[in-house]
Amino acid sequence: MKRTHLFIVGIYFLSSCRAEEGLNFPTYDGKDRVVSLSEKNFKQVLKKYDLLCLYYHEPVSSDKVAQKQFQLKEIVLEVSSQRACCLRCLSFDEEGSLYILKGDRTIEFDGEFAADVLVEFLLDLIEDPVEIISSKLEVQAFERIEDYIKLIGFFKSEDSEYYKAFEEAAEHFQPYIKFFATFDKGVAKKLSLKMNEVDFYEPFMDEPIAIPNKPYTEEELVEFVKENQRPTLRRLRPEEMFETWEDDLNGIHIVAFAEKSDPDGYEFLEILKQVARDNTDNPDLSILWIDPDDFPLLVAYWEKTFKIDLFRPQIGVVNVTDADSVWMEIPDDDDLPTAEELEDWIEDVLSGKINTEDDDEDDDDDDNSDEEDNDDSDDDDDE
Amino acid sequence: MKRTHLFIVGIYFLSSCRAEEGLNFPTYDGKDRVVSLSEKNFKQVLKKYDLLCLYYHEPVSSDKVAQKQFQLKEIVLEVSSQRACCLRCLSFDEEGSLYILKGDRTIEFDGEFAADVLVEFLLDLIEDPVEIISSKLEVQAFERIEDYIKLIGFFKSEDSEYYKAFEEAAEHFQPYIKFFATFDKGVAKKLSLKMNEVDFYEPFMDEPIAIPNKPYTEEELVEFVKENQRPTLRRLRPEEMFETWEDDLNGIHIVAFAEKSDPDGYEFLEILKQVARDNTDNPDLSILWIDPDDFPLLVAYWEKTFKIDLFRPQIGVVNVTDADSVWMEIPDDDDLPTAEELEDWIEDVLSGKINTEDDDEDDDDDDNSDEEDNDDSDDDDDE
Repeated sequence: MKRTHLFIVGIYFLSSCRAEEGLNFPTYDGKDRVVSLSEKNFKQVLKKYDLLCLYYHEPVSSDKVAQKQFQLKEIVLEVSSQRACCLRCLSFDEEGSLYILKGDRTIEFDGEFAADVLVEFLLDLIEDPVEIISSKLEVQAFERIEDYIKLIGFFKSEDSEYYKAFEEAAEHFQPYIKFFATFDKGVAKKLSLKMNEVDFYEPFMDEPIAIPNKPYTEEELVEFVKENQRPTLRRLRPEEMFETWEDDLNGIHIVAFAEKSDPDGYEFLEILKQVARDNTDNPDLSILWIDPDDFPLLVAYWEKTFKIDLFRPQIGVVNVTDADSVWMEIPDDDDLPTAEELEDWIEDVLSGKINTEDDDEDDDDDDNSDEEDNDDSDDDDDE
Repeated sequence: MKRTHLFIVGIYFLSSCRAEEGLNFPTYDGKDRVVSLSEKNFKQVLKKYDLLCLYYHEPVSSDKVAQKQFQLKEIVLEVSSQRACCLRCLSFDEEGSLYILKGDRTIEFDGEFAADVLVEFLLDLIEDPVEIISSKLEVQAFERIEDYIKLIGFFKSEDSEYYKAFEEAAEHFQPYIKFFATFDKGVAKKLSLKMNEVDFYEPFMDEPIAIPNKPYTEEELVEFVKENQRPTLRRLRPEEMFETWEDDLNGIHIVAFAEKSDPDGYEFLEILKQVARDNTDNPDLSILWIDPDDFPLLVAYWEKTFKIDLFRPQIGVVNVTDADSVWMEIPDDDDLPTAEELEDWIEDVLSGKINTEDDDEDDDDDDNSDEEDNDDSDDDDDE
């Protein structure tokens, strides 16, 4: 019989911050907020803290690797709990999982286990589920958000029952999907919104879909969003990376790497958006865009796993079960494929003409050659 | 006499990544890459590794806080060195400092000590110091970069001696300042660049300054950039936060908090840009914009230190020596100050009419009231 091991992160108040000069890296303040929980101290600990995060883990084995990994997670929790102060938390049912309890909703954190990612996730959860748009500049800000699923509704006032249903629906998807509302006629006109109507924007699409049959109940809104949740092109985010990765189509992901802040990457992303807009009605197409800047710690790992150079734009098919992959040949980053060439390539992927199994003769021996430098692809320009 | 303590991060090759399914959080792989260095093992260690990062630290004292802090840093180095593989490194002269040696240049890392920040810094250092712009879409990407100092030059070819001087100059500022070049007449025309001319763009300004007296030597370019390095409005970045913080004007920083992804924050940032453009010729004005999204782990700390609500836009004056601060009253985030109101407020700051000392009667007792909840400002809307 296995004993239950739990970490409790008690977040009572933030008195621990030191009043030193201006900007400081948050360091451990000497107060233990992570407590190892047993059946014995359970109730007592529960009483002691106002806000709780529970992290459920396997008993830590005695080997060095497991202990270091565990230590790392413990420290992430320490630093996070020093900084994020405002949520009651957690139930659990899966090992290694982190759950947050907000009101009567339980939210699983299925993202990168890093202090900054976790804290940003918690901060996003604290904000109001619906953001109100009330000026021209705010409409501009709304329009510039292109890499999230977003919804916007026009309502009479905060007291409207339809606004309340919208707000309740928003809570189901916070912080992954962005909900906006306006009570301003001018703003509604600019966005072509009728009273009590809600528009749904797929990421990277210019034109929204007006959700049919207004006004809506909370359930109708939730159902519509769930049905339209997998977009043609989406950005991988640290705070939901595992969840997104599990949301594959027929065991594969079409993955595109492009660094938005780099001119080549920007150009490639614009071409991808064009392809996505042309094919938004194809339910079999879902492209996962990864900006390497969002995952600095994974760049070297991906370069090795996929045998590609991430300093250049890349697109490929990845088999989610064995991470086997095939990548489009882009001979020169000054000569990126056109939207048409990309569409032809994608068609070959969807028809199975291009797949991850064909080159398996080359790949089969990869799994146990970890220590060998059998990477025949790019020669690094560093030393 | 104090013994020298050093950590050596030996980065030989990246064989350690495990070939598992698609996307994984990088975990400790059991290989020690961080070695505590003494005079005894120095030469031996130096021989063993191709690439080195040196982290110079004080002897770790035996108290619990210091040990936990040290442990945290050690693990950051472990994870970073597993992932970043390509730089030779380091000399040292200051305690707690991290230096990187690239070719014959020594670069101090003066940013947030977190694995992702450090690795992204290293990845940026590996890239070419000059990015080539060769298409219309790339010009668009170039134009969209507004929150960095950037330079662009037009040259005959990669072999041009003037391009080489430009490239050498770029290396002095990599990765903080972005250098671009084009060899394409069409691109040069679009950007109104003459042959061998270099344009200098201050962050958030639409119009560049053409650097006078072309063609330039490396030294002339370096000198020009150094003289124009402190902009009217700049964004605080994790990878250079300490350096930026030390670059105050007369002991103060004008600090603006605005979350770009939030409509209110976006609106406030647009107003700030307007103010910066109107006052770009005022050498006494330098505003530091902080996007809380870039520093999730510092949000709670800043809220407490400055006694402000970072879920709303804020602007204030901060005294860099004691972190004392005064903040503009913004009663409602639906009613942000206009550019004119902000300019009046800034004028009062620069003339000394608004300063951090006037309210010191209230503030004096703050330093030793760490444990008390004497925060009279905002009531949190969370529970």
